[in-house]
Amino acid sequence: MKGNIKKIGVMTSGGDAPGMNAAIRAVARACSYYNIECVGFYRGYQGMIEGDFVELTARSVKNIISKGGTILKSARSTEFRTKEGRAKAYEQVKKAKVDALILIGGDGTFNGGIVFGKEFGIPFIGIPGTIDNDIAGTTSTIGYDTALNTVVECIDKIRDTASSHNRLFFVEVMGRDAGFIALNAGVGAGAEEILLPEEDLGLDRLLESLKKSKSRGKSSSIVVVSEGDKTGKNVFELAEYVTKNLPEYEARVSVLGHMQRGGSPTCFDRVLASKLGVKAVESLLDGQSNAMVGFLNNKIVTTDIEEAIISSHDINRELLRISDILSV
Amino acid sequence: MKGNIKKIGVMTSGGDAPGMNAAIRAVARACSYYNIECVGFYRGYQGMIEGDFVELTARSVKNIISKGGTILKSARSTEFRTKEGRAKAYEQVKKAKVDALILIGGDGTFNGGIVFGKEFGIPFIGIPGTIDNDIAGTTSTIGYDTALNTVVECIDKIRDTASSHNRLFFVEVMGRDAGFIALNAGVGAGAEEILLPEEDLGLDRLLESLKKSKSRGKSSSIVVVSEGDKTGKNVFELAEYVTKNLPEYEARVSVLGHMQRGGSPTCFDRVLASKLGVKAVESLLDGQSNAMVGFLNNKIVTTDIEEAIISSHDINRELLRISDILSV
Amino acid sequence: MKGNIKKIGVMTSGGDAPGMNAAIRAVARACSYYNIECVGFYRGYQGMIEGDFVELTARSVKNIISKGGTILKSARSTEFRTKEGRAKAYEQVKKAKVDALILIGGDGTFNGGIVFGKEFGIPFIGIPGTIDNDIAGTTSTIGYDTALNTVVECIDKIRDTASSHNRLFFVEVMGRDAGFIALNAGVGAGAEEILLPEEDLGLDRLLESLKKSKSRGKSSSIVVVSEGDKTGKNVFELAEYVTKNLPEYEARVSVLGHMQRGGSPTCFDRVLASKLGVKAVESLLDGQSNAMVGFLNNKIVTTDIEEAIISSHDINRELLRISDILSV
Amino acid sequence: MKGNIKKIGVMTSGGDAPGMNAAIRAVARACSYYNIECVGFYRGYQGMIEGDFVELTARSVKNIISKGGTILKSARSTEFRTKEGRAKAYEQVKKAKVDALILIGGDGTFNGGIVFGKEFGIPFIGIPGTIDNDIAGTTSTIGYDTALNTVVECIDKIRDTASSHNRLFFVEVMGRDAGFIALNAGVGAGAEEILLPEEDLGLDRLLESLKKSKSRGKSSSIVVVSEGDKTGKNVFELAEYVTKNLPEYEARVSVLGHMQRGGSPTCFDRVLASKLGVKAVESLLDGQSNAMVGFLNNKIVTTDIEEAIISSHDINRELLRISDILSV
Repeated sequence: MKGNIKKIGVMTSGGDAPGMNAAIRAVARACSYYNIECVGFYRGYQGMIEGDFVELTARSVKNIISKGGTILKSARSTEFRTKEGRAKAYEQVKKAKVDALILIGGDGTFNGGIVFGKEFGIPFIGIPGTIDNDIAGTTSTIGYDTALNTVVECIDKIRDTASSHNRLFFVEVMGRDAGFIALNAGVGAGAEEILLPEEDLGLDRLLESLKKSKSRGKSSSIVVVSEGDKTGKNVFELAEYVTKNLPEYEARVSVLGHMQRGGSPTCFDRVLASKLGVKAVESLLDGQSNAMVGFLNNKIVTTDIEEAIISSHDINRELLRISDILSV
Repeated sequence: MKGNIKKIGVMTSGGDAPGMNAAIRAVARACSYYNIECVGFYRGYQGMIEGDFVELTARSVKNIISKGGTILKSARSTEFRTKEGRAKAYEQVKKAKVDALILIGGDGTFNGGIVFGKEFGIPFIGIPGTIDNDIAGTTSTIGYDTALNTVVECIDKIRDTASSHNRLFFVEVMGRDAGFIALNAGVGAGAEEILLPEEDLGLDRLLESLKKSKSRGKSSSIVVVSEGDKTGKNVFELAEYVTKNLPEYEARVSVLGHMQRGGSPTCFDRVLASKLGVKAVESLLDGQSNAMVGFLNNKIVTTDIEEAIISSHDINRELLRISDILSV
Repeated sequence: MKGNIKKIGVMTSGGDAPGMNAAIRAVARACSYYNIECVGFYRGYQGMIEGDFVELTARSVKNIISKGGTILKSARSTEFRTKEGRAKAYEQVKKAKVDALILIGGDGTFNGGIVFGKEFGIPFIGIPGTIDNDIAGTTSTIGYDTALNTVVECIDKIRDTASSHNRLFFVEVMGRDAGFIALNAGVGAGAEEILLPEEDLGLDRLLESLKKSKSRGKSSSIVVVSEGDKTGKNVFELAEYVTKNLPEYEARVSVLGHMQRGGSPTCFDRVLASKLGVKAVESLLDGQSNAMVGFLNNKIVTTDIEEAIISSHDINRELLRISDILSV
Repeated sequence: MKGNIKKIGVMTSGGDAPGMNAAIRAVARACSYYNIECVGFYRGYQGMIEGDFVELTARSVKNIISKGGTILKSARSTEFRTKEGRAKAYEQVKKAKVDALILIGGDGTFNGGIVFGKEFGIPFIGIPGTIDNDIAGTTSTIGYDTALNTVVECIDKIRDTASSHNRLFFVEVMGRDAGFIALNAGVGAGAEEILLPEEDLGLDRLLESLKKSKSRGKSSSIVVVSEGDKTGKNVFELAEYVTKNLPEYEARVSVLGHMQRGGSPTCFDRVLASKLGVKAVESLLDGQSNAMVGFLNNKIVTTDIEEAIISSHDINRELLRISDILSV
């Protein structure tokens, strides 16, 4: 099977995530190990359309395992959404003599690959790289563990000042459609309440919980709010609503923002990216395509890519329950 | 002189800053070393009014040197601004047999001490603790160095994602009246432009600079904006203004917020707080009062406290010039 | 069943690990949630023998989730290994009206619990807390993820200086009997070679690999060595052996040591400890005993404690293979 | 004056230090700002001898301000110590049309520059870059502040495990001839005792101090030892000596080693390096030579380079005194 593939193209697309560089390195080194050529397209599908790429050797990826961001840059290409755009991209891929693609990104990236693969028959494997962890077929996406630690470190700092002033803080974290970051970082940071996109626990419950906190002697509190929470109020409106209803609280808001996407990846994300990058190359050489490599039940596996993005794993209700017990 | 002082009261007031605990520890240990009693008032002047304090021994401050926030908590007391409030505070101070005060905080804290000292004749020494560094009579306030590093680490993370997406970021940092954090963290983070409360460089200059950046091949840029910058626009309006005038830029905004006040203090802040805490105790024992301890020309000195807050040291124009050269 | 248990005693024993405090907090809060009393024995079995314990309420564990070490302290008790010592311990447990125990530690800790449980019939649950990850019945022990990140951050720093000087570094990491830290941190830090207690790959292979590295243009290299590696040489002897045989290398040694046990726990370790702590309390209330709570296949489960320590999970040979590919 | 200098060569030599890259960036950008060419010699004087250099433009130094190590690499060149070696170096410098040199390093580096300058009349400016801070003419060398924070963070982690086990730790830090790191990081980490190369306080004092610690209720202790301390015992021998004489102590040793040289520079080191790099270029353009740029009394100044290395500033005895008070 390997005989068919002589050159692999790799790229990062969509929102960047820590560990993408570790995945690029693993792809490049695995190619070198198997004596295959490797090129990296810049800025995702846009660079493919423009024929903007670089040769990746085992040495050209040295010392990037510890770096945040992506050396191949990322973008969201509107041109690639058109048939013409994809045709141009295919021309460039042929011209570059690339036989197969490795796509590092989230569901948008994979959807592009599915359409492209159907239209032009080019084999491809997806590697899940996004801080949101909203991809089925893997317990963890690359970048998620790093983002959790970034959020927890920020909230630890906010708690210092919250405790010093007996204040209530509303901290908004990333996650428009998925509450993984909010829920896990919330438990990790010891948040009193966690508001998620997946379910509306109701504003009454929030007020009740904060009242209870005061009566139990808590002098400061942290409420973690996912970007896409279901209360119908943004984080500033929430703070206003609470201080109107519970004037004994002095509330502050902090929106953590884009720093959640950056930083040197954690050991977990580096090892995960390393395993997935090698597996992606080996899967292509093995004749697989239209699949995503992932980490499930402590093993590296491949999943049909359409399943990986159609289904989405649910929020961990058990962890919500534990969060309630811990904020007693 | 020492004979007069048998018990010192210490407190933290105003915005909290990393290193306040290191200063409390130094005061408590210096008292123990000189065989003086030490108590800590909770929540600044408010705890003084309420007689809410704790005995501090050499052992009760163990392991706090590395902790952010303040174990004595902090507050802004409106009651202390009234004559009645201060009279109550004095009653409690007498009742607690406290002979002298050490006040850790910024100019608001020191102003309170000046009035209190004049009204009731109680000796006091100020220790400059604020992340803003807006106190004359010391090159650095406690917490400033830590805040600079927190900001630089955040911007390093933002730069990862800015570079990956070729984006322009506006990052708002603390400093309503003083641009020390913005200027120094801006240079430290390699910002392209820095907007300060101290002077309005003009929106035209900003546009000009960003145009030049593009033409010189910079693919991503960071603009650091002080809370109190003089452009007349807040950070969101600035981003909008720039993208309207320079549509080639894709701009994002990040407001770092309260995390800048937290975190484990840097070595510099711990050593500074340790020196100032010991010096404050020794100054009181030496018969001094109405003074602030500070760090000037690499020496620990005392300054008349009214001078320390009336004059304010200017922004470092030389560093602004260097920033211009470096963002070439 | 719950009716039988009115008070739970918790303790930490053996080598300390980051996240032990998060586990103590979870135990104390779960007890509070289920209206059960909770006490913490100091210094593991030794404090039990001495009747040295403290009442733990929901409030007394506040803000410890982010702290390294253990507020209950830890020790290895030789007295508890004697029948007399255990009898004393049981007297104290009865006197304190403790109905069941939660033991946080590694296999030594659990062995103590097994003997104690058999002799005196006191129900107990183990929580795996050790940086070494050498416990079956859980994919991760509490503290392991934090230790991995500590090691990777240290090696990142060492690589800065290794690259600057084109040097070879031998870095010794913890793990007398288990190579989990060495293998995972080695892959995470991009090590060229990893030496483990689980198998002797041979000194020839090491020399061969380093020769190959040079010829492939690598200018600096990191070799990660587990404390208990099987080459028969310690890390200093290894460095000497290599420079004798490959004089083109300038080698340095770094022994990371005890800092690997400390530091604020990662989000993963905090969440894991939180889940395991709650589950331990609920398991006891549910009538279970002689079991360890653990994290397997992404679920919190209980295992018979003798199985948990008799069997030990093997080193991940697949990851060793991946490490070889990546150091191409 | 400027007319004479059209191209500047910069290099890093000796032990690497965090912030060297920030200095290289500042030199390259200042050259660009003043329309001068800039090249970087690799591996210090060795690269000069070999004619191994790279052109540095404003863009080629992008994003290096946050990186540890040195992109120009460093080395200690034995060949440069010979007249022949220096003659070769001069040939290469002429061939590269380099008119003036900027040397980033410590006293060894500067000594090389002095000899080279005398022999061949080439103007040069030194920038103090070393973690040891053992250069007169500047309050801080580049890298020193970062190293202090690295050490303090490591000792914070060691203290976690020291406290958990009531242990005594001896921590060896860098500083063969200068105790700056040991003294300042020791105070910052709250060490009980600090042993320095500058003076032998005697082993009796150490035993006395540790006895006193126990009697005052301290349950764990940290002793910071400089590599070159004057007790005549290395850190392992010290630990043995203490446990022999004070068997109530359980002692452990940690040698922090080379990680102290690495890591992303602190804000202070980045700003310092930025200022010194610009000043070095401006000083050369201004006709200066044989000088070192430094930071004294909060100002950037130039000092005659022979003075900068002949005199060496003394250890801060006042800080030793404060350390004694704080470890009460």
